[in-house]
Amino acid sequence: MTDKTIGIIGGGQLGRMLAMAASRLNFRTIILEPQADCPALQLANRQIVAAYDDEAALAELADACDVITYEFENVPVAAARFLADRRPVYPPPRALEVAQDRLAEKTFLNDCGIRTAGFRAVDSQVDLETALAEFGGAGVLKTRRLGYDGKGQKVFRAGDDAAGAYDALGAVPLILESFIAFDREISVIAARAVDGSIACYDPAENVHRGGILHTSTLPAEIFEGTSSDARSAAIRLLDKLDYVGVIGIEFFVATDGALIANEIAPRVHNSGHWTEAACVISQFEQHVRAVTGLPLGDPVRHSDCVMQNLIGDDIHDVRDWAGKPDVLVHLYGKAEPRPGRKMGHVTRLTGRA
Amino acid sequence: MTDKTIGIIGGGQLGRMLAMAASRLNFRTIILEPQADCPALQLANRQIVAAYDDEAALAELADACDVITYEFENVPVAAARFLADRRPVYPPPRALEVAQDRLAEKTFLNDCGIRTAGFRAVDSQVDLETALAEFGGAGVLKTRRLGYDGKGQKVFRAGDDAAGAYDALGAVPLILESFIAFDREISVIAARAVDGSIACYDPAENVHRGGILHTSTLPAEIFEGTSSDARSAAIRLLDKLDYVGVIGIEFFVATDGALIANEIAPRVHNSGHWTEAACVISQFEQHVRAVTGLPLGDPVRHSDCVMQNLIGDDIHDVRDWAGKPDVLVHLYGKAEPRPGRKMGHVTRLTGRA
Repeated sequence: MTDKTIGIIGGGQLGRMLAMAASRLNFRTIILEPQADCPALQLANRQIVAAYDDEAALAELADACDVITYEFENVPVAAARFLADRRPVYPPPRALEVAQDRLAEKTFLNDCGIRTAGFRAVDSQVDLETALAEFGGAGVLKTRRLGYDGKGQKVFRAGDDAAGAYDALGAVPLILESFIAFDREISVIAARAVDGSIACYDPAENVHRGGILHTSTLPAEIFEGTSSDARSAAIRLLDKLDYVGVIGIEFFVATDGALIANEIAPRVHNSGHWTEAACVISQFEQHVRAVTGLPLGDPVRHSDCVMQNLIGDDIHDVRDWAGKPDVLVHLYGKAEPRPGRKMGHVTRLTGRA
Repeated sequence: MTDKTIGIIGGGQLGRMLAMAASRLNFRTIILEPQADCPALQLANRQIVAAYDDEAALAELADACDVITYEFENVPVAAARFLADRRPVYPPPRALEVAQDRLAEKTFLNDCGIRTAGFRAVDSQVDLETALAEFGGAGVLKTRRLGYDGKGQKVFRAGDDAAGAYDALGAVPLILESFIAFDREISVIAARAVDGSIACYDPAENVHRGGILHTSTLPAEIFEGTSSDARSAAIRLLDKLDYVGVIGIEFFVATDGALIANEIAPRVHNSGHWTEAACVISQFEQHVRAVTGLPLGDPVRHSDCVMQNLIGDDIHDVRDWAGKPDVLVHLYGKAEPRPGRKMGHVTRLTGRA
């Protein structure tokens, strides 16, 4: 019988959906999250309201749980290591280290034999100008840490003036990435169990708007070989990290089908929400299974589908969505529909797979 | 935006699954249930720990909720009417009255033009002997009220001695039902919205063991005409009750395909658990949609499937079930696996519909 308690760091919609999946398998969940009455709490057993680096709270979480996981990749690595001294922490803290720093991430991906955009570390204005010269004056300058959904970035086209750009992004460690030509974006949601077994869902084709995921469509319009390349990249990467849990890996796809990895998210991923509607075992249950030592579920997809995020005021269309056939609506229990805020998602089944 | 609070009377697995479906649509749920820390609480926002007929608690529930529903058909009708004076109560209390009394139920079914087994009211030993004589000495004697899963019943075969049977069943109002010849059992899960629109899921074929549902299989092996007869019976019955919410209707199917209604359950139903795995909109979400005034979901089935209950010690097989492909496991958070206790269910997808 399954009677463990799972600690989840982070109480947003991903923690909420993990808690929901956990409850269906008889697991209890405790959320560690500084925001009181967080979205995850409605579905979880308990919330510890504390900062992610509060050691007393972390110790309390470890004492109360059998295993600990997280819903976002910016969990302080020190906190994850503090917990890992006391209880199993999945995915391993090493995955956080890699994912939190774009330089470490791209270096790691290349070490796994996975192609990325060209990149240069930028720790000064001089570094920036040298790197830009190497990339023909074009590239995307990004903070190495804590950037997401397009924030903390600056784009350079050939001829743009780079003066002051290092300071403008905060004079923090940066990375310059070369532009790459690509036709489409895909992601692979994969899971690895404690015993090393791996399950990959079919790649989703993703469309972003304003730097935020808009839709994920299954199947992706890609070559069969691109799909299997994405899977084997996922497998190499998961094995190398001795990973446990679900991971999301984003790729650009070139016209010839070649893959260029963009980033990894060591957690359940927005581009995997479709699994809830089109697979027997969702990415959320898959993650719960992995971290609790249950066998991984079969990631087979019974239907084609399109997942669409409901951002900000999109939430007001919920009644219309609910009236359409073959649409699963999932809302996150957030009170205020602020611009850019992920309020929910809908998945429309478009045919049998 | 969907921001109502739903009151649910009863905190077992059905209330739990309703609360889960409600949370996904941003509804809050409050459970009224005398057993503290009930299975539904983990997924609900709050529990009022009180007897079902506690008027102070009922008033508190009404004050805190926008609409009230229930997970079991033995909610006291007086409590439902008390609530209905304050807030919408769906399904309507009239449905409880009909479902709580086998005599009223069979009479109502016949009034809807739906065939049932022969039946006679039994209010004394003399009534019993008269009725048995009419039925050739054979039949099933049942309490009119509060019987379920085969409890409170006595079977008579021709030649059996009926002496003392009325007293043995408690000298309460009884009903004698004639035996009927049937090949199989099916059920229809249907829903009716406030605007009168109706959605029926495909009939499930049910197998009972020891008076408890064992499996529900889709599709049922029945004639097309039997399937449409079951739907039209459901529609007549729902309209006649001015029903709102999900209902479960059990039928026996004769060799020639004729339907004999067995009983109705004015709530989500065990034989509809398969909808969670094989349909976009589960019976739980369908019920939530109906009682909150959202449009009903399309009841289309994307897969064939078999749902199996996990009763008592079956719970120990959960790890094996989780290891099988195409199986969705759903557990109810109950601590002790007592004999006959419903601990969870599994639904195996067996092919595309």
